[in-house]
Amino acid sequence: MRIKIIVPLLTSKYNSAVQEDIAPYIAPDVSVTVVNLDFGSPSIESRYDEMCSTPDIVSKIVESEKEGYDGVFVSCVSDPAISVARELVDIPIVGGFEPAALSAGMISKRWGIITITQSCACLIRDLATLAGIHQQLACIRSINQPIDELHQAPGKLEEVLLAQIKKMVSEDRVTAIVLGCTGMMGMAKYLSREMETVGMPIQVIDPSAVALGYLQMMIRAGLTHSRLEYPKLDLRERDMSCVK
Amino acid sequence: MRIKIIVPLLTSKYNSAVQEDIAPYIAPDVSVTVVNLDFGSPSIESRYDEMCSTPDIVSKIVESEKEGYDGVFVSCVSDPAISVARELVDIPIVGGFEPAALSAGMISKRWGIITITQSCACLIRDLATLAGIHQQLACIRSINQPIDELHQAPGKLEEVLLAQIKKMVSEDRVTAIVLGCTGMMGMAKYLSREMETVGMPIQVIDPSAVALGYLQMMIRAGLTHSRLEYPKLDLRERDMSCVK
Amino acid sequence: MRIKIIVPLLTSKYNSAVQEDIAPYIAPDVSVTVVNLDFGSPSIESRYDEMCSTPDIVSKIVESEKEGYDGVFVSCVSDPAISVARELVDIPIVGGFEPAALSAGMISKRWGIITITQSCACLIRDLATLAGIHQQLACIRSINQPIDELHQAPGKLEEVLLAQIKKMVSEDRVTAIVLGCTGMMGMAKYLSREMETVGMPIQVIDPSAVALGYLQMMIRAGLTHSRLEYPKLDLRERDMSCVK
Amino acid sequence: MRIKIIVPLLTSKYNSAVQEDIAPYIAPDVSVTVVNLDFGSPSIESRYDEMCSTPDIVSKIVESEKEGYDGVFVSCVSDPAISVARELVDIPIVGGFEPAALSAGMISKRWGIITITQSCACLIRDLATLAGIHQQLACIRSINQPIDELHQAPGKLEEVLLAQIKKMVSEDRVTAIVLGCTGMMGMAKYLSREMETVGMPIQVIDPSAVALGYLQMMIRAGLTHSRLEYPKLDLRERDMSCVK
Amino acid sequence: MRIKIIVPLLTSKYNSAVQEDIAPYIAPDVSVTVVNLDFGSPSIESRYDEMCSTPDIVSKIVESEKEGYDGVFVSCVSDPAISVARELVDIPIVGGFEPAALSAGMISKRWGIITITQSCACLIRDLATLAGIHQQLACIRSINQPIDELHQAPGKLEEVLLAQIKKMVSEDRVTAIVLGCTGMMGMAKYLSREMETVGMPIQVIDPSAVALGYLQMMIRAGLTHSRLEYPKLDLRERDMSCVK
Amino acid sequence: MRIKIIVPLLTSKYNSAVQEDIAPYIAPDVSVTVVNLDFGSPSIESRYDEMCSTPDIVSKIVESEKEGYDGVFVSCVSDPAISVARELVDIPIVGGFEPAALSAGMISKRWGIITITQSCACLIRDLATLAGIHQQLACIRSINQPIDELHQAPGKLEEVLLAQIKKMVSEDRVTAIVLGCTGMMGMAKYLSREMETVGMPIQVIDPSAVALGYLQMMIRAGLTHSRLEYPKLDLRERDMSCVK
Repeated sequence: MRIKIIVPLLTSKYNSAVQEDIAPYIAPDVSVTVVNLDFGSPSIESRYDEMCSTPDIVSKIVESEKEGYDGVFVSCVSDPAISVARELVDIPIVGGFEPAALSAGMISKRWGIITITQSCACLIRDLATLAGIHQQLACIRSINQPIDELHQAPGKLEEVLLAQIKKMVSEDRVTAIVLGCTGMMGMAKYLSREMETVGMPIQVIDPSAVALGYLQMMIRAGLTHSRLEYPKLDLRERDMSCVK
Repeated sequence: MRIKIIVPLLTSKYNSAVQEDIAPYIAPDVSVTVVNLDFGSPSIESRYDEMCSTPDIVSKIVESEKEGYDGVFVSCVSDPAISVARELVDIPIVGGFEPAALSAGMISKRWGIITITQSCACLIRDLATLAGIHQQLACIRSINQPIDELHQAPGKLEEVLLAQIKKMVSEDRVTAIVLGCTGMMGMAKYLSREMETVGMPIQVIDPSAVALGYLQMMIRAGLTHSRLEYPKLDLRERDMSCVK
Repeated sequence: MRIKIIVPLLTSKYNSAVQEDIAPYIAPDVSVTVVNLDFGSPSIESRYDEMCSTPDIVSKIVESEKEGYDGVFVSCVSDPAISVARELVDIPIVGGFEPAALSAGMISKRWGIITITQSCACLIRDLATLAGIHQQLACIRSINQPIDELHQAPGKLEEVLLAQIKKMVSEDRVTAIVLGCTGMMGMAKYLSREMETVGMPIQVIDPSAVALGYLQMMIRAGLTHSRLEYPKLDLRERDMSCVK
Repeated sequence: MRIKIIVPLLTSKYNSAVQEDIAPYIAPDVSVTVVNLDFGSPSIESRYDEMCSTPDIVSKIVESEKEGYDGVFVSCVSDPAISVARELVDIPIVGGFEPAALSAGMISKRWGIITITQSCACLIRDLATLAGIHQQLACIRSINQPIDELHQAPGKLEEVLLAQIKKMVSEDRVTAIVLGCTGMMGMAKYLSREMETVGMPIQVIDPSAVALGYLQMMIRAGLTHSRLEYPKLDLRERDMSCVK
Repeated sequence: MRIKIIVPLLTSKYNSAVQEDIAPYIAPDVSVTVVNLDFGSPSIESRYDEMCSTPDIVSKIVESEKEGYDGVFVSCVSDPAISVARELVDIPIVGGFEPAALSAGMISKRWGIITITQSCACLIRDLATLAGIHQQLACIRSINQPIDELHQAPGKLEEVLLAQIKKMVSEDRVTAIVLGCTGMMGMAKYLSREMETVGMPIQVIDPSAVALGYLQMMIRAGLTHSRLEYPKLDLRERDMSCVK
Repeated sequence: MRIKIIVPLLTSKYNSAVQEDIAPYIAPDVSVTVVNLDFGSPSIESRYDEMCSTPDIVSKIVESEKEGYDGVFVSCVSDPAISVARELVDIPIVGGFEPAALSAGMISKRWGIITITQSCACLIRDLATLAGIHQQLACIRSINQPIDELHQAPGKLEEVLLAQIKKMVSEDRVTAIVLGCTGMMGMAKYLSREMETVGMPIQVIDPSAVALGYLQMMIRAGLTHSRLEYPKLDLRERDMSCVK
């Protein structure tokens, strides 16, 4: 089984860290390729960014299917390009939000999301509304830090996230947390462990771990998006100037 | 007061018909300019079409603000580009869906939408979910006809719509109807009249009529989208290759 | 186009202030008449008050239609008499709540209402439930001041409202505010400006501004309440002792 | 324990039938008085009727408390005057809708209401929305017959109700039925029995039976409406021209 | 009329207190028998406890019907065994949760539950979700004390409950409270009185009072659970090793 | 990685068929053991059956953890014993319903469930309500056939399911189907193929395929149920007579 991960950045500098981070989540018969974008926004932190990056993500998904990949994970919690691409390809495609959010409902009936900025919080709240899961979603909090500042001061991100998560347990009474940015990779296990130490034994969900497991499940089960929900478009009959 | 209407087609051939159609909905102190797209999909009937046309719609909205327009109506029931553009401009922008859907709740507590294709029905259902109004929305039906076939056989569209609307009243028990495509212009009054004749006195909502009234209201009230909901982006600090 | 505004008080002393306040929201081809009640409660701040004032509001709406008015705005956020009157007349009628609440959903997906007393807060919460919009309504707060005290100490109302609205942004995380009393006229612009100054750029919705824009839209669009939702009553066949 | 039943008609001709019908639902230590209205609509089948009859119902509730009654049942499924009266008296008051609707949720998770006219269906749907129980309410159907025609042709009402209820089971898949008019008294047991005969063993809920049981429970439990929900009004400080 | 109360403990030591406590809620023509369990958990404070005690509760309900009882109240707010037993018997059965929760909606539109432990809070939240009433349920709080510690220090339970309930009024803005454990018997009236003293006149609902009133209503009305919702099982054709 | 599948039947006769059926859904580094029950109901088709079988399922889950299994799948769409066992063990446990239902929301926003009997339909509807996903769940239909009749007439099950699924697409307008019984194994692919042939290209979700993929994901991601949601019980301090 071959999976393509699209990290929607204009740089490949995090790709090896991504490969290392996701290794435990991949079955031995699965090979994973990580790619980035050739054009679009440097990162996706607004609806404008999403618009700019969507065409190239779609192109790379269409290309992945032609190359024989069995599925694609777009590594971003705003699920960019997912619904568009489903009109064009038959292989399963997942983003970072939906699998994590739906899985949260399996292990908790009252959970929250922690993300990076107010802009992302609004984007994610719209995705939660669309997914029909707002009933269990007790809160969306943000740490108010853009993604490129996240990893600058070592230990700073850990500290800020931990402080917010403690509030989510004590004030919002959640029993699980979804990390609302794939740039928080490596944090989930640390945070779970720290929370257990302080007597708040909460599950922290890493969106990449869940999305990749989900995608492998879909491929093995022969599942993909519904054609009645996403009627197929034939790109040969269409102007292709939008996607390369 | 100056309003720009963006009809997201690559042709201007319907513009004079649009001007004539919307004239009754415009106050005497309001001037309206109708423009089209320079690039994008020929029409918006899928998520792919929406992706292709969004960048040029956004460009034209940004341009409208620079030209001093007081507000913009994007004449399409899938509300394309609306949320992206709100990050970039301060003037109010409306699409065809939200004003019509929210107004339906004013005149009926159980209403339905009639649109053109299954693909549009899914797009519109997602918009209704996002708008949080699914409780009153009893059904979305489609006539299964792409937009370019709509006006070909004279009287055909009227006939097909009337048949579906009768079913929506008798089977789905709705008390109002939203027309789910701005290409159905001129139909609302005809359908209301015919339905009254057959003893089913139902309101049929024309999305353009409502959107334009809504936009004039926002401009007079000094209302626009919330900056906490759509944090402002400064395009000067951003790569502008996505919008012209 | 002729619009009647019913200010449901037993005094006409605020009428000229109302005329001045709403002037910017009225198109040049629209004339507005403001009237008051001949009997009923001095103001509407409870369900009992609403019961007492409803018959005369209904009478004045029936009369307005006979006089050839094109629509009526009942200037009160508890939407008194609206649904009763819709059974009796064909012209569109709006109150202060529904247009403001439905418009809030256009500019924000998480908003709140600020009103005067606990009693009004309960009345308004019921209206929100009826309108099916509770999903986006994050909170209803009250300033705990009856309406006749509102304008007594100059600057006091501004201060109290501003304090509550700041809490609604920081604690309830709303991105827009609906003013829950038409007696708060003139406050919306002041509050928006002040909130921008303190770095919380939130939209504050004046219910009269929105209702009047909404009503003009309905009149131009030829829209009115659904007869399937509000079956017509013939008052000639009915005992008229309830309305004058 | 003393209970007052207000049958909101201008005639007393059904009172003895009511007394007989409700006898099985009353504990031996409870005495019941049935009264009617002195003014108002002949019956409550529209929002206008409700407005006309509400003041006298409220007066009679206030009077009941003064006379030492322990609780009041307003025998009408549109729950007229209930929320107004709760601002004025301390004793528990119930209408026909809320107890029946909330009890339906105890014996079924998918149920429906059968009422007399489209107008009543809309009124009742609004009450269901207000009560927050729309999730379980699968349908509201009407037999399209005004209340004064209900008992004219013997056996006709039974036949019409039975036909609709069969459809509600087979088409709407409900597992319980609420009778949406107190004028359908005596029907619940007949309909339950007939439905069992045809292999559709469904519970049919008589609103009077449930409301009276509910009221007795509230009185014995010392429960009444919340004063935080319905702040108390002092009528001595108010104009009393609205209620006699 | 004969009612059986099953107090799901392995001891009878509270039975006479229960008899005394519920006496005011019982009509004079009703006799009440209180029984306990022969096997199961000492008390029901977790899902495991519920599993352990359910078979004997079911046995005792089946037995009650054979003995000619008209209805059964299982005195526990986690409603254990209720839905299972409904498949086996025809007489009405109620637990402590559903009647109290549905009744709360009659006297308040925004209410909360106070229970003993986090585990019970999760159990109860699931019941609320199942009952479809989460819209009005503003919060579930717990006092974090297991049931056997509840009555140890005299006055301690009163104090702890009062402190939490004050917070529920001021912070969660509820207008009524449901006591989330039948072990809190005798508290409701005390708490209502104390809250009135401090100017927060809130109704506190005792689950046993409401459940017993509810049960008497069902018996007098001839109501029971729907057979379409709980299809009847014939235990003679089944392995009986699960229930004694 | 070692997974235990508990097929909650008293016979092992389907185990090799199960092993064969699920083989494609299992990664090469995963070994699967299938076990059955020693006591309980012959199959789970009612709430009574669920009560009878739950204790032995719980015992077998506790035993699995002691034996070092990494996770357990209880192969039944009524999710029996899942929430109880989560209080006792740390390893992830899934049933047939939740993973399938949550995954349906990934590939469709309007889907339905097809199950075997009315009793199962009610059980499943309660699970859907608990999972908070009723918004997207358009219908639950049943084929009205107990599980032991399912495989008797060859081809009969296929035929009956296909007929119902066609109705779900045309009448209920769903875009995906969840098979509501693990006894329908092998049907999903057949039904998907047949539906594509008739021009209704719908995804049919096999609950075992999804649950096993889900479980593998949880194990690889180090995810399990939240301890704040399911507080841990120590069985050593508890009476163990309920589980063997």
